[in-house]
Amino acid sequence: MGRGPLAVLRQVAAACACPELLSSPALPEAARHRARRVLREMDAGNIGGYNHEHRALGVPTRVARFLERRDGGVPCNPGNVVLCSGTASILPFVMSLLVDETAAQPTGVLVPVPGPPLHGAAARLAGAVAVPYPLAEERGWAVDGDAVRRALGRARARCLPKALCVVNPGDPTGHVLSRQSMEDIIRLAGEENVLLLADEVQQERAFLPDRPFLSFKRVLGEMGAPLASTVQLVSFYSLSKSVAGESGFRAGFLELVNMEEGVMVPFQLAQSIPRPCVLGRILLDLLMDPPEDGDPIQQALQEHTQGLRRDLAHNARLVQEVLGRAPGIRCRPLHGGARAFPRIQLPPRALRQARALGLEPDVFFCQELLEATGMVLAPGSEFGQPEGTHHVGLSLLPPAETLERVLLTLTSFHAAFLRRFS
Amino acid sequence: MGRGPLAVLRQVAAACACPELLSSPALPEAARHRARRVLREMDAGNIGGYNHEHRALGVPTRVARFLERRDGGVPCNPGNVVLCSGTASILPFVMSLLVDETAAQPTGVLVPVPGPPLHGAAARLAGAVAVPYPLAEERGWAVDGDAVRRALGRARARCLPKALCVVNPGDPTGHVLSRQSMEDIIRLAGEENVLLLADEVQQERAFLPDRPFLSFKRVLGEMGAPLASTVQLVSFYSLSKSVAGESGFRAGFLELVNMEEGVMVPFQLAQSIPRPCVLGRILLDLLMDPPEDGDPIQQALQEHTQGLRRDLAHNARLVQEVLGRAPGIRCRPLHGGARAFPRIQLPPRALRQARALGLEPDVFFCQELLEATGMVLAPGSEFGQPEGTHHVGLSLLPPAETLERVLLTLTSFHAAFLRRFS
Repeated sequence: MGRGPLAVLRQVAAACACPELLSSPALPEAARHRARRVLREMDAGNIGGYNHEHRALGVPTRVARFLERRDGGVPCNPGNVVLCSGTASILPFVMSLLVDETAAQPTGVLVPVPGPPLHGAAARLAGAVAVPYPLAEERGWAVDGDAVRRALGRARARCLPKALCVVNPGDPTGHVLSRQSMEDIIRLAGEENVLLLADEVQQERAFLPDRPFLSFKRVLGEMGAPLASTVQLVSFYSLSKSVAGESGFRAGFLELVNMEEGVMVPFQLAQSIPRPCVLGRILLDLLMDPPEDGDPIQQALQEHTQGLRRDLAHNARLVQEVLGRAPGIRCRPLHGGARAFPRIQLPPRALRQARALGLEPDVFFCQELLEATGMVLAPGSEFGQPEGTHHVGLSLLPPAETLERVLLTLTSFHAAFLRRFS
Repeated sequence: MGRGPLAVLRQVAAACACPELLSSPALPEAARHRARRVLREMDAGNIGGYNHEHRALGVPTRVARFLERRDGGVPCNPGNVVLCSGTASILPFVMSLLVDETAAQPTGVLVPVPGPPLHGAAARLAGAVAVPYPLAEERGWAVDGDAVRRALGRARARCLPKALCVVNPGDPTGHVLSRQSMEDIIRLAGEENVLLLADEVQQERAFLPDRPFLSFKRVLGEMGAPLASTVQLVSFYSLSKSVAGESGFRAGFLELVNMEEGVMVPFQLAQSIPRPCVLGRILLDLLMDPPEDGDPIQQALQEHTQGLRRDLAHNARLVQEVLGRAPGIRCRPLHGGARAFPRIQLPPRALRQARALGLEPDVFFCQELLEATGMVLAPGSEFGQPEGTHHVGLSLLPPAETLERVLLTLTSFHAAFLRRFS
């Protein structure tokens, strides 16, 4: 969005990497102060080693306090917080724990359609079967409990479904689940005895004040016994999708809820879990446990976060306004996340031409768009979409002027496309 | 070894993280110059993004040139170099590609005894069977081809062996393989049709000039047709075990040799491969492609490397001298790596007492050592050892004075232990 990196985070990283900067006026004192605190916790005062205790104890303890604040006081045990190097590499590991190769039936994992391609790929990599369930487009891409149950029922003929992936805020849909909807999903998980895999990595990008992000952990905790102490949940958080947006640092964490103790052992001990690099952990820690009010780092973080949400909300309104005027394009309300997923009408002649070329119709549309305008959009089939419908995925992250140009290009190309194939 | 981190690397990392330092005299100009070059290659000149091209193309190209220099000109295709976040998390991924869950027999992976506990654990995590093969202690822990063949033969009754792990320089043994021995292993891999998994992460710590480290890739290449173009090999390199010793940055790479093209696809594309953080890649890149002769970074790197090898060689001599005088302790020659693995004689009465306590005899010895002296050594059973023998694992990395104290404590405790149980 043209904001650039959050400078305070980088200043802390630089001072931690290079202790000679701790006493240099080249960096602001607030950053050096924080770095000194970080280094006191490192083995031999240095970020070069494995620093097991920082990873397994120090940062998780502060993450747990952050989660308790986020969740209105629902308690969090730091032992249930596991740092990782990002969702893409930890998700297959989590799913692999559900797979029993000696069982007669393979393990099934339910994944939303549309949804991030990662989830299905992770299931297959883990040796499980990805079972798609459709989101309810007509209800703004909410999760439809009946549709999940139908998918579960059909899946049981070919696998043993053990987990249900829910993405909130939705990607690519931009939908933020209501508390009511989350309670329904939790009850369903309890009744059907499936683990909830809550992909909540877009949580800091919920931008509508009247549709705030609620974590599954919070809603579960507030539902009380017996569900609160029985429904199993793994929630994912990623530095890449945080307000800091630092994808290069490869850091994130899981919270595991209501797991048997035996399940926690591989998470705490396995050498083979991809662990975050030390600077990634340090930045994550800074977001989870920023300095007190009044500290310049705290102030910079707050301003950045507010600015980011304001810009996202502005861009979302822009999408609704521009696409709302376009015949044959329809975008559902956007509440959060980094993408819109408008439906685009494609005329029958275009479908036939796509078929003749051996392409999905939305891929054909995006290729034609690329050739005519030089603009790349993601075809809906990358994320999955209801049978017989067509969508495109749009990023909400460019600066507003760029996004406006993208939207105008899309609508005028689409209008010409409708004429061409009418 | 009391050296501290390699300051030039950290200076480059700091300047990359925090571009306002690029023009600050707080960092040496050589580091800022390098950082400017690095940032030119980053998307939007910033390390915050995924920077796919830097990971998949830029750094691998320079790694390939480094490998060609290392290997006396044996060619390397950058497309066969895959960056990863370290051996521990990529090894199970590589092994999982050998596992076919629908096959009648499970996949077997041969692992050396003694060897890093990681290898057997990775095999089990990947759904394969770890098949131990003994190293030849009486030949300084060389690989004994006949012993490997016997292990293969026995393994075929219960699994389909598909890979042979070889650790060179040996860990915990400190043995560096001779060219002759490597040629034998390569011929064996060709005859038995197994993939060679060459754990060469200790390669920069070969410290004896008359026993230089040779990579399997080089020896294979120099053996010529038909082996050079048929034996399949994966070699592992790690920033943690490099001269820089930067474990916190989680970076390394694989080189894959003689793979079918289909095998390369998951390595190039899979989102789920644990990828190194951007600063880890930048440091790795700096080791692979340092500035020209005369540049202060190049000079600092050379001095650091020479100093490290000199210190390791000095420490290895110290181990041989002190342990060589101790009755009942025997350490084989040390050529490289970061550990020694001396054999310790334990008297029959100590074995009986250990059995009564339900402990491995070497664990009993190490516990008694800890209680009497406060010193922690790794019992040999952590790495595996020949039936009926007992060893301890010793780090070669402390400063010489510390290591000398460790050795004297060990030998005097062992002498007292022999008397106590005689």
